[in-house]
Amino acid sequence: MHEFRYIQQYFAPLAGPAGLNLQDDAALLSPPSGCDLVITQDAMTAGIHFFADDKPEDIARKLLRVNLSDLAAKGAKPLGYFLSLLLPKETDEAWVSAFASGLQHDQQCYHLQLMGGDTSAINGPLTFSLTAIGTVTQGKMWRRKGAQPGDILYLTGTVGDAALGLLARRGEIPSHPYLLERYLLPQPRFLPQHLPISAAMDVSDGLLQDAGHLAAASGVGLQLDASTLPLSDAATPYRQSHLSTIVSGGDDYEVLFTMPPGVMLPVTEFPITRIGHVIAGKDVTLHDETGKIIEIPQKGWQHF
Amino acid sequence: MHEFRYIQQYFAPLAGPAGLNLQDDAALLSPPSGCDLVITQDAMTAGIHFFADDKPEDIARKLLRVNLSDLAAKGAKPLGYFLSLLLPKETDEAWVSAFASGLQHDQQCYHLQLMGGDTSAINGPLTFSLTAIGTVTQGKMWRRKGAQPGDILYLTGTVGDAALGLLARRGEIPSHPYLLERYLLPQPRFLPQHLPISAAMDVSDGLLQDAGHLAAASGVGLQLDASTLPLSDAATPYRQSHLSTIVSGGDDYEVLFTMPPGVMLPVTEFPITRIGHVIAGKDVTLHDETGKIIEIPQKGWQHF
Repeated sequence: MHEFRYIQQYFAPLAGPAGLNLQDDAALLSPPSGCDLVITQDAMTAGIHFFADDKPEDIARKLLRVNLSDLAAKGAKPLGYFLSLLLPKETDEAWVSAFASGLQHDQQCYHLQLMGGDTSAINGPLTFSLTAIGTVTQGKMWRRKGAQPGDILYLTGTVGDAALGLLARRGEIPSHPYLLERYLLPQPRFLPQHLPISAAMDVSDGLLQDAGHLAAASGVGLQLDASTLPLSDAATPYRQSHLSTIVSGGDDYEVLFTMPPGVMLPVTEFPITRIGHVIAGKDVTLHDETGKIIEIPQKGWQHF
Repeated sequence: MHEFRYIQQYFAPLAGPAGLNLQDDAALLSPPSGCDLVITQDAMTAGIHFFADDKPEDIARKLLRVNLSDLAAKGAKPLGYFLSLLLPKETDEAWVSAFASGLQHDQQCYHLQLMGGDTSAINGPLTFSLTAIGTVTQGKMWRRKGAQPGDILYLTGTVGDAALGLLARRGEIPSHPYLLERYLLPQPRFLPQHLPISAAMDVSDGLLQDAGHLAAASGVGLQLDASTLPLSDAATPYRQSHLSTIVSGGDDYEVLFTMPPGVMLPVTEFPITRIGHVIAGKDVTLHDETGKIIEIPQKGWQHF
């Protein structure tokens, strides 16, 4: 019987004051005044979101980061998280220890602490659910709705790396360390909160499909320029041959956002690229350099 | 592809204002002033916490209620919840619809709303994680710590029904509808918030083991009187033969709490029974009518 020992040895050290040393039934959070709470929850299960033999540190960091990416896309500052850990019977202590050290590493990077959660056995694959809580100045959360015709459409980072990394992992294209790394480890993109962002979202299920969600929530259309899509050096050779994978493959964890024209872009550690603009209507279209629409049959990822 | 349609058709109607119609990356919660937030997370997976062929309505209600039981034990009023839903590929729409109707039923009973979450496929059993959020007057959350020698130990409801229900389900004792029902459907026990409760917790992993957690957190010992343990009519025949199951079987979802002596018990819809008292030291012991200690080798449930 290891459950309570594991919790005290590996997870209690990750807990902040709200977590009450993981020794109570619940966490106690006194929300900072003048703030709204932004709360997001994402689950991951082996064979769908990661490979069971990925390093436990990497699995932990991906789990935390896919949720932090949602907070980043809402303009929120990370505060803490809750973790459900469902472990197959064969999971050994070394795995648990390594998983916890991955969490610890990223907690320090992103300044948040464990608040609570649950551990259980599962008659199935490694499965996790993480609930992340962030704070934002009252009334200032960026929504998916709010984009206006005439606004400019931006994307952080580069698109398609993770989807190509998954193809490389499967042996369908040549292996490449940068693409593999981008599949394993998302980079949450925290943007300066003072930006006059009119709408924003996290791109996780494919750029075109997610652009469609932002457009629908805002009641506008979007025109994306394929030639301006920011690709990493590793992805550039696939711009023509794998365009569909790049714009619909998912797992990008970049922020797609709109701002009125004329806003000076901030200096950030990652690129921010203008990839299109907002129009009236409701169509989301991808255009080549001549303005012709490029048809992409499968616009993104659904789980069932 | 059903994911987005399922969310809009079955889950968006369950969402309150904080859930933003489940159409954004995150929920937006403006915490009520003068309140602390109490947050708890529990996962459930088929084959461990329930049977895969249990009715979907019942699975949904148990999932919600095991978390509400944690809020009840902390003196918190339910506000909302986040749900991760991991569905095997063979899950059909009728299942999803029935599951959502179970959530809806209990949302109305307990006055809370869906705030967000995540849906995904799983290459394994039906698996869920639920994060419940409640509110409590600032500084008034009941903790596991705080019990003082001389305090009286109380238990809500009856103990052992669910563990006996599981034995009945497995055919190890004769079937009984009340015991089966108690295994399927916990009853969160919301106590009046004005009670001078010194320590409280949710009994879910076995009364003796959980009493040990409360004692350890408070730095006290506990003496429990076996003859005073509240048993339902259906459980009474098993008081001698299955005492170990009753006090260590788990899934009770009753509230174990302490108060100073001399407090008048409130009128509640469920019984509240004095089952022992708090002593100095750190031993948690179960006594028979003569005062002799009854040894129970396996004090509760751990998942691994």
